Amino acid sequence: MELLLLSNSTMPGEAFFTWPRPYVSAFLSGRKRVAFVPFAAAEAQQDAYTDRVAEVFAEFGVELFSLHKEKDPVGALSGADAVAVGGGNTFLLLRALYRTQLIKAITGAVKNGMPYIGWSAGSNVAGPTIMTTNDMPIVEVPTMRAMHLVPFQINPHYTEATIPGHGGEGRDQRIAEFMSVEPKMPVVGLREGSLLHVSGGIMRLEGQGMKVFRSGQEAKEMSGGAVIPPSLVGI
Amino acid sequence: MELLLLSNSTMPGEAFFTWPRPYVSAFLSGRKRVAFVPFAAAEAQQDAYTDRVAEVFAEFGVELFSLHKEKDPVGALSGADAVAVGGGNTFLLLRALYRTQLIKAITGAVKNGMPYIGWSAGSNVAGPTIMTTNDMPIVEVPTMRAMHLVPFQINPHYTEATIPGHGGEGRDQRIAEFMSVEPKMPVVGLREGSLLHVSGGIMRLEGQGMKVFRSGQEAKEMSGGAVIPPSLVGI
Repeated sequence: MELLLLSNSTMPGEAFFTWPRPYVSAFLSGRKRVAFVPFAAAEAQQDAYTDRVAEVFAEFGVELFSLHKEKDPVGALSGADAVAVGGGNTFLLLRALYRTQLIKAITGAVKNGMPYIGWSAGSNVAGPTIMTTNDMPIVEVPTMRAMHLVPFQINPHYTEATIPGHGGEGRDQRIAEFMSVEPKMPVVGLREGSLLHVSGGIMRLEGQGMKVFRSGQEAKEMSGGAVIPPSLVGI
Repeated sequence: MELLLLSNSTMPGEAFFTWPRPYVSAFLSGRKRVAFVPFAAAEAQQDAYTDRVAEVFAEFGVELFSLHKEKDPVGALSGADAVAVGGGNTFLLLRALYRTQLIKAITGAVKNGMPYIGWSAGSNVAGPTIMTTNDMPIVEVPTMRAMHLVPFQINPHYTEATIPGHGGEGRDQRIAEFMSVEPKMPVVGLREGSLLHVSGGIMRLEGQGMKVFRSGQEAKEMSGGAVIPPSLVGI
């Protein structure tokens, strides 16, 4: 499999999709047509979102077409050289992936070699479930099971920071709650400005870094550039 | 209906369940046995959680017994003078309410006059759905529909604040996402240190205040002590 799983598209204060450009450009080298999945955005915003991403991808010499405009999105996917799944709300995204049956089609295509790029919600759905999303559950989903392209849960936008003077749970506490019900499942907290790159059976971390949570073990911090040992993330 | 819906049990830096004591004490005046619902806590923590809450409620002269220790929780509920639903993870709570069939039993009892106290997750489930929870969706639920004791969504621990330098969505953006798919449903952002008290057909806000979100309207700030006009929250 060829995967590029980004924590986020854009750093606070930077222009849209700035930090990941060199990684995405290299990942898509030689690819011509990318199918875009904008379903994490609200329906009224999907056209504009597609335009915005298409503009960035055009700089890599890639033509982006969006599956939300296709009558037969599953059929249209097969004409693509790669698939990109955008961020937004993970529940909106997963609901649409089931409604369109793209979940099965994308999973199959990627397991057969189609390169997959996801950011934020688009990285969440690459894990076994969306149970470690940060998003509000604004719509019902048939199940929280997702694509299971990697055998660990992803928590994008990972940070230890909390809102000063606020009593709501911090991220580590939320992940610990998840692990109390799913103790065998590793969770990767992917910091903003970070990505996981899977290619040729090797997984590499790039950017700001990540923290790996495994039940009964101390969380393990890893830095950009690291090759991820399979044992660490349950592979 | 007699409802006391708290944003949170405890302010940051204060001892457990400090700020709401006078309100809860007055609300339970004359009640002897309170059924406690600790299912928002992880299973291993439900005993300790019950003990902690029982200690506080004993100061109000109330005996608290927990439904997680009952073989027949629905039957045990009928022997209570009031019901209290604690905070923790809203998905854990809702899953258990369906598994035990307490969701129907509590809804029925409260509509027939049994006083209901909820905090955090326990307030969330008093709304039509849990779609405006802040919690991580760590387990599957059969549906996100909840008790619908009030006709608006509750967002507990409401704040406009965000984590400095972090790109994740703020609360207002999350609530706006929800309203983009459910435009007819009002959302009440209940600030920490605040509660809604429903009694004799009147709803009153106490404490730090709240913000009411209605689609197509500017969000409306309300202060503690206010009587809530029915039109504002869809009643």
